[in-house]
Amino acid sequence: MAEFDLIERIRAASADLGHGVALGIGDDAAVLDVAVGQQLVVTTDTLVEGVHFFAGTDPADIGWKTLAVNLSDLAAMGAAPAWVVLNLTLPNADVDFVDDLLRGFVALAAQHGVALVGGDTCSGPRNLAVTAMGLVPRGSAMTRRGAQVGDAVYVTGAPGEALAGLDWLRAQGGIAAAARASGPAALACRRLLRPTPRVTAGLALRGVASACIDVSDGLVVDLAHVATGSGVAIELEVEALPISAALQALQPPPACFDTVLAGGDSYELAFTAPATATLPSAAQCGVAITRIGRVVAGQGVRVVRGGQPYASRRRGWEHFA
Amino acid sequence: MAEFDLIERIRAASADLGHGVALGIGDDAAVLDVAVGQQLVVTTDTLVEGVHFFAGTDPADIGWKTLAVNLSDLAAMGAAPAWVVLNLTLPNADVDFVDDLLRGFVALAAQHGVALVGGDTCSGPRNLAVTAMGLVPRGSAMTRRGAQVGDAVYVTGAPGEALAGLDWLRAQGGIAAAARASGPAALACRRLLRPTPRVTAGLALRGVASACIDVSDGLVVDLAHVATGSGVAIELEVEALPISAALQALQPPPACFDTVLAGGDSYELAFTAPATATLPSAAQCGVAITRIGRVVAGQGVRVVRGGQPYASRRRGWEHFA
Repeated sequence: MAEFDLIERIRAASADLGHGVALGIGDDAAVLDVAVGQQLVVTTDTLVEGVHFFAGTDPADIGWKTLAVNLSDLAAMGAAPAWVVLNLTLPNADVDFVDDLLRGFVALAAQHGVALVGGDTCSGPRNLAVTAMGLVPRGSAMTRRGAQVGDAVYVTGAPGEALAGLDWLRAQGGIAAAARASGPAALACRRLLRPTPRVTAGLALRGVASACIDVSDGLVVDLAHVATGSGVAIELEVEALPISAALQALQPPPACFDTVLAGGDSYELAFTAPATATLPSAAQCGVAITRIGRVVAGQGVRVVRGGQPYASRRRGWEHFA
Repeated sequence: MAEFDLIERIRAASADLGHGVALGIGDDAAVLDVAVGQQLVVTTDTLVEGVHFFAGTDPADIGWKTLAVNLSDLAAMGAAPAWVVLNLTLPNADVDFVDDLLRGFVALAAQHGVALVGGDTCSGPRNLAVTAMGLVPRGSAMTRRGAQVGDAVYVTGAPGEALAGLDWLRAQGGIAAAARASGPAALACRRLLRPTPRVTAGLALRGVASACIDVSDGLVVDLAHVATGSGVAIELEVEALPISAALQALQPPPACFDTVLAGGDSYELAFTAPATATLPSAAQCGVAITRIGRVVAGQGVRVVRGGQPYASRRRGWEHFA
């Protein structure tokens, strides 16, 4: 593979983004400035073809999502995204693929002023890893550990739409159907293929949320990490779950309840906060927030409907293929 | 893949390493402290089975090398390694493989006090990416840009031994031969499979070297990056090249000259410094340093032997497989 050409393309695509870059792409390593009083927040995630995305997915969507899933983790910590590095493994030197991929990647990077400061390209089965770095004022990162008994539980946006999009694509025979989706199906596919990392919400929730996580594996599965990390139990009410019009159109109740509870890949933020806390507005968060339950003594996550235990028929994260 | 078990294994293997880790593995992201007056140095490299290492390579060697190639980039910048994240893509949940890999990875991490602060595990063809973060006092990172006409050119250790090891393995039919190597062949195989990142030398050269790079692709190829980055030419003398006893035993002259000039994967440091500079000692660097040429006006790298242009019969970096 013509490694140097690809790196040059990456450099060209990502120029002029970001702050604090003393030395960017083009040396053995990047040199970055962390302002006094800030802590560095680092996360990494890999996407593999056939596992995290269908073969045949628009490369621009792959590029977007590869970055989005990492920015989502930073958002869950309340970090302002700053820099990313990209490891691209591709079966051949497909310049068109890389250009398209970078177009999606840079479109999202530009929205958040994120600089691509390094990376490498390798020959091999398609595999994309991103490591994202963000910044928080010292001591202000949100974690999974702070939920307290009596807190309320919230989620941003409409988790489940992405899974409904995946369900729809599967029913239609695969990714090729995305191009002909319309109405609710088109919206659900877009949630799956172009998730919005809740960076703005994460920043707005700093100092308000007692614990926070992003919904990558599924609402119940991810909130179980908060419960474990905080040494508490979480009770969710089916009646309180946000069911978007698109989701309801695609999957009438009760299917949509299970899809919301199980649906990973949504990259919404699930968080806890004191029941008396003043939450930031939807305008401040860039997305609506819904109260979906409460923190109680015990362990694990339980779901109730009409006051009775509710057994969901779907589990958490499923591989795409 | 049982992702959570693997992450737990990684966490267990890497506990108690490193400094400045406010929050390590186990949340959406790590939170790290960069001391006032320090800059963050970030690099990333991927290893792919069949490209960067033979299928059948001891997983502990793979783990070691995956980290080593990244620490080498930090060394070339003069950075003290601090933290790494690891992206592991493996075809199945092979716990023995992961344990062995982590054993090699952690052995090297422990030598340098590097903390593994994050990562992920995926199903797919074997692919390992590491992103390494180090620290330098502000403004002191070594780059490829500072070489001046009149500077001398140096290299640490014995570049070429790793390539001689690869040559030997290929002649013997593959990686399985490594176990029965002895004498010079064993040493050369070890250079290939367990390279030593020149972290100590990189730290010692800060403030002395005018430009520095690690020899990952080949001595001539990598010094050409220094020449380009600095806007100068570099002249290397064949008579001055360090030819180790092992290399000479495996490849008598003149073959060894070409192997040194072409040999990538050695992770030695090549650098320039004023001809009058006092270099750190071999003891301070942890490795011998050899003067191999000089910086002159012009562009590119030329090699001379007996004052005449020397045409090497080998090119730079070759894929393993």
